Amino acid sequence: MGERTSRLDVSYTGEPLISRIEVKVRFSEVDSIRVVWHGSYVKYMEDGREDFGEKYGIEYLKIFDNGYTAPVVYMRLRYMQSVTVGDTVVVETRYVPTLSAKMIFEYNIFRKSDNALVLTATTTQVFMSREGELQLNNPPFYEEWKKRWNIG
Amino acid sequence: MGERTSRLDVSYTGEPLISRIEVKVRFSEVDSIRVVWHGSYVKYMEDGREDFGEKYGIEYLKIFDNGYTAPVVYMRLRYMQSVTVGDTVVVETRYVPTLSAKMIFEYNIFRKSDNALVLTATTTQVFMSREGELQLNNPPFYEEWKKRWNIG
Amino acid sequence: MGERTSRLDVSYTGEPLISRIEVKVRFSEVDSIRVVWHGSYVKYMEDGREDFGEKYGIEYLKIFDNGYTAPVVYMRLRYMQSVTVGDTVVVETRYVPTLSAKMIFEYNIFRKSDNALVLTATTTQVFMSREGELQLNNPPFYEEWKKRWNIG
Amino acid sequence: MGERTSRLDVSYTGEPLISRIEVKVRFSEVDSIRVVWHGSYVKYMEDGREDFGEKYGIEYLKIFDNGYTAPVVYMRLRYMQSVTVGDTVVVETRYVPTLSAKMIFEYNIFRKSDNALVLTATTTQVFMSREGELQLNNPPFYEEWKKRWNIG
Repeated sequence: MGERTSRLDVSYTGEPLISRIEVKVRFSEVDSIRVVWHGSYVKYMEDGREDFGEKYGIEYLKIFDNGYTAPVVYMRLRYMQSVTVGDTVVVETRYVPTLSAKMIFEYNIFRKSDNALVLTATTTQVFMSREGELQLNNPPFYEEWKKRWNIG
Repeated sequence: MGERTSRLDVSYTGEPLISRIEVKVRFSEVDSIRVVWHGSYVKYMEDGREDFGEKYGIEYLKIFDNGYTAPVVYMRLRYMQSVTVGDTVVVETRYVPTLSAKMIFEYNIFRKSDNALVLTATTTQVFMSREGELQLNNPPFYEEWKKRWNIG
Repeated sequence: MGERTSRLDVSYTGEPLISRIEVKVRFSEVDSIRVVWHGSYVKYMEDGREDFGEKYGIEYLKIFDNGYTAPVVYMRLRYMQSVTVGDTVVVETRYVPTLSAKMIFEYNIFRKSDNALVLTATTTQVFMSREGELQLNNPPFYEEWKKRWNIG
Repeated sequence: MGERTSRLDVSYTGEPLISRIEVKVRFSEVDSIRVVWHGSYVKYMEDGREDFGEKYGIEYLKIFDNGYTAPVVYMRLRYMQSVTVGDTVVVETRYVPTLSAKMIFEYNIFRKSDNALVLTATTTQVFMSREGELQLNNPPFYEEWKKRWNIG
């Protein structure tokens, strides 16, 4: 993926940080071929990321209140199955440790009814000051957050 | 509708202020019954309003640069026909004069292929200062704008 | 509103049919003035309607499996307050009895944190056969549904 | 990327198939940090793909009328810059030849005002019969389309 190397992962000895949330498919998210439109999964991933943030104390508002935003700069999605109206998906969001000043997440999205894996994805976020300046080093609040969760 | 009275309309003797813009239906805007999802028209109306704003000099950024926002506080939509993938709609946006500190627009949306009327709608917007305070009187820039276009 | 008359309401002596569901505001639903974009409420209302449908056995798929669709032909929204990122809204959906071949719902949307009423709205849906023919009389499944819930 | 090899590209000696379309940023596509929400680009890419399809005769409805759908099974987006309300983007969509039964596109999205590159992306689509069966070989209409445009 080029966004991380396996070496960095090795240095991480803590428990995996992972969250799971259920999201019900909206009628408006289904397209004319009766399956969830491929762009709608970006919202499910955001739901997953926000759920992760609430569980581990790094949600959007926390980042914002610390004086930063965390725009997505890279996104990759691979679709295995489709889901439709009436379906509920389970979004599994896993934090991927990295030494660079980024937040990387991996996602597995499952169809709840039969537990089929419907999507795997990853996102990379950077930190920007409120003035829009890219942060090359971890912001202090993020450094503390990593220590708190015992992340390399 | 309760948002305006016909008396106010009578006092308006200028030319009707109206704009027309074509919008191509997006694949993602069509729902599982193969027609444009009813909520998507809110975006077409916004396209129409922005086109009106550019034509008459009262677009979103102009309002914002003058220190205000103009949130929609009322919206009413009536659907006559449906449109689908491949269709283009024509959004006709008409300014409705009012004495109160509001912007009222009426919309007619047509299917381009056969000119069928597919939707009529209206929106009402108020003015808020950037601090979020409702303006009970017309902001100066709006007063000037009305004079410029000879609106009662 | 013109969509129903009070006379019809009077004939209804059963319990009010009402559902309540919580919806968390998505980051992507908030617009550039930091409040939920006015069009996003159409999705919350759809969430409410679907929740109602599941509670009372008249959800989208039930209608579809009976050979019909139920497009929204009228929608009216009045905005009192705004909500933002981090907020959760409570969508209250109430069925409004009518003698005509329609489904009418009224919505109250509250901000969960302080219970403020942020929106009132109504929608009207008609029934179409799968071939797209408007139904002037109640479809049999809807007639049964009304009897089941003791609706005039 | 794993979706194609450079070898396949080499076999292609025709002119590059490319289209360009302008898309105006919608107010509702801008998020609370005043830039276009990262998921909105998926729609701009779809606009680009549809523009390409109209230019070269392989638009969504053409595919559908031939008895197929072409779901996106892979998507990768890299964000370099951001755009905001009032901006217009130019979506450049390029067809990437492949021997497998897929359609691969690459996208460059530019900010119109200063021609800055704001996003590069790629999508991969497969062909499904209307019954939902994955096509392992090129559908006849696609084979003909490739011949028509002199694609390997």
